[in-house]
This record gives sequence, structure tokens and C-alpha cells, in this order.
Amino acid sequence: MEIPLKETERIDDLQLKGLKLIQDKNGFCFGVDAVLLANFAKVKKGANVADLGTGTGIIPILIAGKSEAKNIVGVEIQEDVYEMATRSVKLNSLEDRVKIINTDIKTVDKELEINNYHVVTSNPPYMHADGIKNPNDKKAISRHEVKCNLEDVIKAASRLVMPRGKFFMIHRPTRLVDIITLGRKYRLEPKVIQFVHPKPKKAPNLVLVEFVKDGKPELKILDPLYVYGEDGEYTKELKDIYSNEDIGEI
Amino acid sequence: MEIPLKETERIDDLQLKGLKLIQDKNGFCFGVDAVLLANFAKVKKGANVADLGTGTGIIPILIAGKSEAKNIVGVEIQEDVYEMATRSVKLNSLEDRVKIINTDIKTVDKELEINNYHVVTSNPPYMHADGIKNPNDKKAISRHEVKCNLEDVIKAASRLVMPRGKFFMIHRPTRLVDIITLGRKYRLEPKVIQFVHPKPKKAPNLVLVEFVKDGKPELKILDPLYVYGEDGEYTKELKDIYSNEDIGEI
Repeated sequence: MEIPLKETERIDDLQLKGLKLIQDKNGFCFGVDAVLLANFAKVKKGANVADLGTGTGIIPILIAGKSEAKNIVGVEIQEDVYEMATRSVKLNSLEDRVKIINTDIKTVDKELEINNYHVVTSNPPYMHADGIKNPNDKKAISRHEVKCNLEDVIKAASRLVMPRGKFFMIHRPTRLVDIITLGRKYRLEPKVIQFVHPKPKKAPNLVLVEFVKDGKPELKILDPLYVYGEDGEYTKELKDIYSNEDIGEI
Repeated sequence: MEIPLKETERIDDLQLKGLKLIQDKNGFCFGVDAVLLANFAKVKKGANVADLGTGTGIIPILIAGKSEAKNIVGVEIQEDVYEMATRSVKLNSLEDRVKIINTDIKTVDKELEINNYHVVTSNPPYMHADGIKNPNDKKAISRHEVKCNLEDVIKAASRLVMPRGKFFMIHRPTRLVDIITLGRKYRLEPKVIQFVHPKPKKAPNLVLVEFVKDGKPELKILDPLYVYGEDGEYTKELKDIYSNEDIGEI
């Protein structure tokens, strides 16, 4: 099938089962955090999955490739980004399992069924919106809390996920106190945390969190993930994530 | 001065400025966590300090040795443990700066002035009290939440510490969600966290937390502290803590 590309767009090979992704060279391109989150999310066969603030569609497409999820919906507020992600779904012939919708996560429960998802994922904007000069800038919307803040994301996840279902998120450790207190506020108990460190002996700069809706309090912190080793090379763990074709509980 | 010892007691050398500590061989003896907490606590010259659940008095005595705190009070509920800690204070001739009081932290604001402490510290019992068969067992009281739980400790700390004052605690990472949500509940904002790992690549088994009363939300996670290196020897960082005679901001 011929998928049209705009002038500033390119097609990237995801190095997983031949999956491809359309990205806008002038827009926000996915990073290691999206790949880490898709790897961290445990998705069982037949699951319903929702990804909040899906952007290019990278997370739904990776999860489709790595699991036997039945339905995966990506929610994106920016119309042109939504349209691009929809073309990426078609490019991979994933229309039967992956759907991108163009709506605001703050009112997502008008379009999606509440308490219906086994798994919700989100790689939300990390930074506060203070000082953003152009609130229509696409990169700013992806990086800063312009259109939604952390509480909106956690509240929406809690609405969509079923009791005992899971919400997986990646964020900055500077926001960990907000992440944890908002989780409890919206019945999403943080159960598993993994810190991602640029290298051993350095503080983490990313945190992966698994919440369970109505989960019993008790947190497990996983062994840390180091991106680079002492030798300056990617660690085996990181290389495994990039080469792992089968990360889900299938 | 001759300090009497009971039959089951011994005197340990703290390897710091000649400081000594009386411990009961059959009771709870201090561990690496007390030393890590005393090192982690930033205590300025002239500070008022309170230590909640002081046990043997290890933390007040280490802080007295390592800082120029003016007054340090240790609060201990068990009468015989309080009495032993008081003898350790005398043994070190620290009566002018360190005082141990025998009371319950749940009603400590009847005996100590609220909003009066620059620094509060606590190395509380880590474990839930479920299944404790002998609630009078001294070791059980030190290890399990028999006489007070985490909320009692955080509530008492918040009452005693002055606005912008600091509370330093060490605990298990499994309780991190409770620690953070209770901190916010009692106006103690978690500002700095350091995880203590048995060795690199392994999950942390202790967490040091610095709270600031009425602090602005934003968490800093410090570089991790590894107790043992890959070679199985103590790391330089841990050896430095044990040999550092000057840990406070003086």
C-alpha cells in the first residue's frame, strides 16, 4: 500500500519485525523513553490497551509488535500528529488491532469505555508549562504540560483501567513525589518502580512506574537499569531491550 | 566517671572521636542504617535536634560527635532502653548537649516544644506489627511497628520541626509510597532521596529521605550509594562515611 508522506516527514525502521514509523523531522521524535516504556509494560494475550498522549504512535505500534494484545488505542490531541500516527498504523497494516483517536485525554471517557482496559500506558510531557512562549508549538506540546498535566494523565488512566488492571508510565524522578501521591489519589497504587540511570554511580534521570488499580500497598523497586556501562558502551540490558522481540507476557 | 554496666551489656567503640556506646547483647544493636542516617542528616552549628525512637542513643551521640548542634534530644519509649542510652550519654560526657527522654512519640509534643527543631531524625521500626507474638519483646519493638507506626513517626516529626526545618529518615524502599504520601499529608515535602544498594546492579534495600517542612515540590535523587562494590569489598563511599569525622554543615 502506498502511504503518502509530507515533505518534512521520513519513515524510520523500528528494527522490530519490520515495523516502521513515520516521523516529522521538525516535530518531536521518539526517544529511548518510549522504547523503555513499551518494554516495561506487561501486556497479556487478548488485552485491551490504551496509550495516552500517543504522539507518533510509537508505543501502540511497539506493543502491537511485541505482544498479542487484542485492541490498542492511542489517544492524541494534536490533529496533525494524530493523522501522521494513523498513517503509521496503516503503513504497518495494523488497522485491525491499533486505532489512533484524536481527542483530549481530559474528556477521553466520553469516547472510550471506562474500567475497560487491562493496560494503560503513557509517556507524558515531563516538564511544567511555565514560560512556554508558543502554546501551539508541536514540540512544546509533547514536552511540556501545555495541553494536560500529570494529574490529568493519572486521572484519565484511572478512569480507563479496570480494577486490578495496570497503568505503566515513564517520567522524570524529580516528579516522583507528585507521581506517587497522585497515584494514590486516583486509586492507582504504585507497585513496581525501576530507575533508569545514565550510568552506574550516577543518579537516575528516568523512572518507570507500574501502578495497579486498587492494588495493595507495597512497593517493589527493581534492579536499576543503566544505559551506559563504566566503559561508556551501551549495557547488555539496554541492548537486550532494543533487540528483544518478545517482551510481553504472552 | 564509672558508669555501671548490667550483666548482658557491653561497651562498643564508635570509632569516632573516642565516642562509646552501651549496648545490650540480648537487645537490638545498631546497624549500618543508623550510621548512614547520622551521616545523611545535615546539622548546622547551634541547631536543635530531636531523634524519634532513639534506642541505644546511637544517632544523638553520632550527631553530637559530628556536628556543632546545640541541643540534641533522643526520645525512647522503652524505659530500660532509655536508661541505657542515658548511661551512654554520661559515658561520653555529653550531658550538656544530649538528653534522652522516656516518652511516647505519639504524645511527644506534651514534653517537647512544637515547631522548635531545626532537624528531626528517625530510624524507625521498618516492619508491620502483624504476627508479633510477644509485644513486650525489646527487639520486636525496635524492628516492628508495635508501639508506633510510620504515620505516628511522620506526624510527630512534623509537629516538632520548624517551618523550613528538616526531617531525615531511613527506611525500607518497600514503604516508599507510604513515606511519600504521609510526608505530604503532614506538610513534610520529600526533597532529597538517596537509595542504598547492597551492590551495583542490585535493587536498593534502604532509602534515605530528607523532608522539608512546607518545602516546594521538586525531588532530587542523589547518586546511589553502594555498600559493596563488584569486587565484594566495601566501597570507598561507605568507608568514607565510617571514617568521616565531620559530616555536618558546620
